[in-house]
Amino acid sequence: MAGPREFFLPELPRLLPVGYHPKAAQIEIASNGWVRRCMGGCFASEDDLMCFLRQRNGLYGPLVVPDAEEDRAQNVADWYQFIAALERLAADRPADEAAHHVSQVVQEIVVGPQSGSGDEPSPYGCAARSLWSRISVGLTGAQVQRFAKIVEMVANRHVPELALPSASPGERLGLQDRMAARVSQHGCGFLELLTEYAAGVDMSEFIGSPVLAETHEHTRWHLILVRDLLSWRRLHDQPGQLTAIRILLEEDGLPLQAAVNRLCELIEYHERAYITARSRILAAPVGNRADVRAYLIGLDQLIAGNQEHEHLTSRNLGDGAVWDGTTCGWLSLDTPVASFRTRGAEQGRPSTLRGG
Amino acid sequence: MAGPREFFLPELPRLLPVGYHPKAAQIEIASNGWVRRCMGGCFASEDDLMCFLRQRNGLYGPLVVPDAEEDRAQNVADWYQFIAALERLAADRPADEAAHHVSQVVQEIVVGPQSGSGDEPSPYGCAARSLWSRISVGLTGAQVQRFAKIVEMVANRHVPELALPSASPGERLGLQDRMAARVSQHGCGFLELLTEYAAGVDMSEFIGSPVLAETHEHTRWHLILVRDLLSWRRLHDQPGQLTAIRILLEEDGLPLQAAVNRLCELIEYHERAYITARSRILAAPVGNRADVRAYLIGLDQLIAGNQEHEHLTSRNLGDGAVWDGTTCGWLSLDTPVASFRTRGAEQGRPSTLRGG
Repeated sequence: MAGPREFFLPELPRLLPVGYHPKAAQIEIASNGWVRRCMGGCFASEDDLMCFLRQRNGLYGPLVVPDAEEDRAQNVADWYQFIAALERLAADRPADEAAHHVSQVVQEIVVGPQSGSGDEPSPYGCAARSLWSRISVGLTGAQVQRFAKIVEMVANRHVPELALPSASPGERLGLQDRMAARVSQHGCGFLELLTEYAAGVDMSEFIGSPVLAETHEHTRWHLILVRDLLSWRRLHDQPGQLTAIRILLEEDGLPLQAAVNRLCELIEYHERAYITARSRILAAPVGNRADVRAYLIGLDQLIAGNQEHEHLTSRNLGDGAVWDGTTCGWLSLDTPVASFRTRGAEQGRPSTLRGG
Repeated sequence: MAGPREFFLPELPRLLPVGYHPKAAQIEIASNGWVRRCMGGCFASEDDLMCFLRQRNGLYGPLVVPDAEEDRAQNVADWYQFIAALERLAADRPADEAAHHVSQVVQEIVVGPQSGSGDEPSPYGCAARSLWSRISVGLTGAQVQRFAKIVEMVANRHVPELALPSASPGERLGLQDRMAARVSQHGCGFLELLTEYAAGVDMSEFIGSPVLAETHEHTRWHLILVRDLLSWRRLHDQPGQLTAIRILLEEDGLPLQAAVNRLCELIEYHERAYITARSRILAAPVGNRADVRAYLIGLDQLIAGNQEHEHLTSRNLGDGAVWDGTTCGWLSLDTPVASFRTRGAEQGRPSTLRGG
């Protein structure tokens, strides 16, 4: 792709406080052991597994449910490792093969291993059964039904998203429209359901009602836009990956830095809009309910924790990188590992932000 | 070196509970940022720095002072990163150059940067000043004096330990004698002083008295023997490194597995002897003092946390490895990264412990 090979990543607003579960370190290590035992067979090699573990996906749970009881935090951590492994599979394999595997996993989660299907048991089956047996006992009947429904949605999503159709010739879809499918289908239902599970509450009565609709909408946009922004170094040369920056670049024709800046504005917009929406709920009569308050705190933590994880994971920084807390600076698209600089290389001799 | 190329690492007793500081994850990240800012210049390259950060030396502090107030835990974490960086320097450079650098650092810690000495400021100077300004305000006058004395001891130690003289021809020193110098000089005084600092107590009145002598002796032996055991894969082909296993192999003539087993017995012996010695103090009148009790809990945590860190660091596991909690199994000396197996390769086809 022609155009600038670097951009300035501005400081994001970070209006919501980040929390790490007090047992984050132990939970991550235990979750890494679980991945090896239950999902070792999903990885092409020991090196591939190690690369995955270096991404620190086991910290995602401790970041998004920092106040959960330890056993629930552990289950949530394992769940998100599982999701990250599925995403890795989907990214690395042909779409139809990935879809087949995901379908198998879905069957195994919802109805147990299929006997007589002629297929080998999915290598994800052990993990799926382990998760389902641990998490389902902490869910209400209504939540179990929602879980099963979302699992099916995710299975159906993986195929279309892997081979996303372009707009018809002459048709031009804006960012809002192009992203709408992701916002509604992105498996975000899991994020909300796991947030309830971690807080020990059931928000099923509000699903589909207008009470939480706005907070959910802004939460989902925030999660996706932050992911798209902080993964751009990794995804910029993967044209099959639909991301907000790609849409702004290729469909809206913005220069790279303008697209980055626009995305940062959108992230700030959704963060502030989320805070306004959830403050409105807290001020309303329903906001006096302890379960609603606990859930909204959980959404705050989900938004803040997701952003922290996108900053720290070597999935975005580059394999082998270790995060040192840096959150802004000039970034090159060409270095294998993210190196934050105080000045753009195209503006003169770069000096590292971190060297000072 | 001839002989077996693998050994079985047994489960160690782990009689003392491991704790991670509740802010371990944040402290490690912040400490990594501090290393980059204050010690970036000590590393040969960005890759070298990243390799160091992948070792997770920033978790050593949160593991050995899990109950400290956050600011003290952060300072302790930074301190141990500093020590680990000094050890890296000592291992990678010629002995005289390393000794020169360490002397500079010592001067800078104790008396400030030397003007007019003609030398460039040591790249460790920023880190030394940062640490000293933060830690010294939390020490009593007696502790400051001990700190300065230990700094000098460490500077003097680095040279002899880098080029340790062999016994005279015909003379044969046992493990106890050969290790005695390390136990008394290994900078262990820092470990004890930092344990006091983290607990907010001053044990100066007991230094040199018999009250704590036995607990300190067993603590030091435990720390060193565990380090020697769990670093053997890394150090086995570095004949200049005096370790307990090397002494047992080369001087006592034990086979590798017998040396490993002997070391495990010694670790258990010192762990139990430590527990007996500290229980005796707790049962005596002095054991009613809150500061003494707090300090002894700190020693428990130091022993347990040190062992946990030796298990988890990629310094021992091999660069790029991520710990999954495995603590025993068959290990090869020849694989670049530790892979724990349930059976020795020389006993038949190996199966991984972790694959099940």
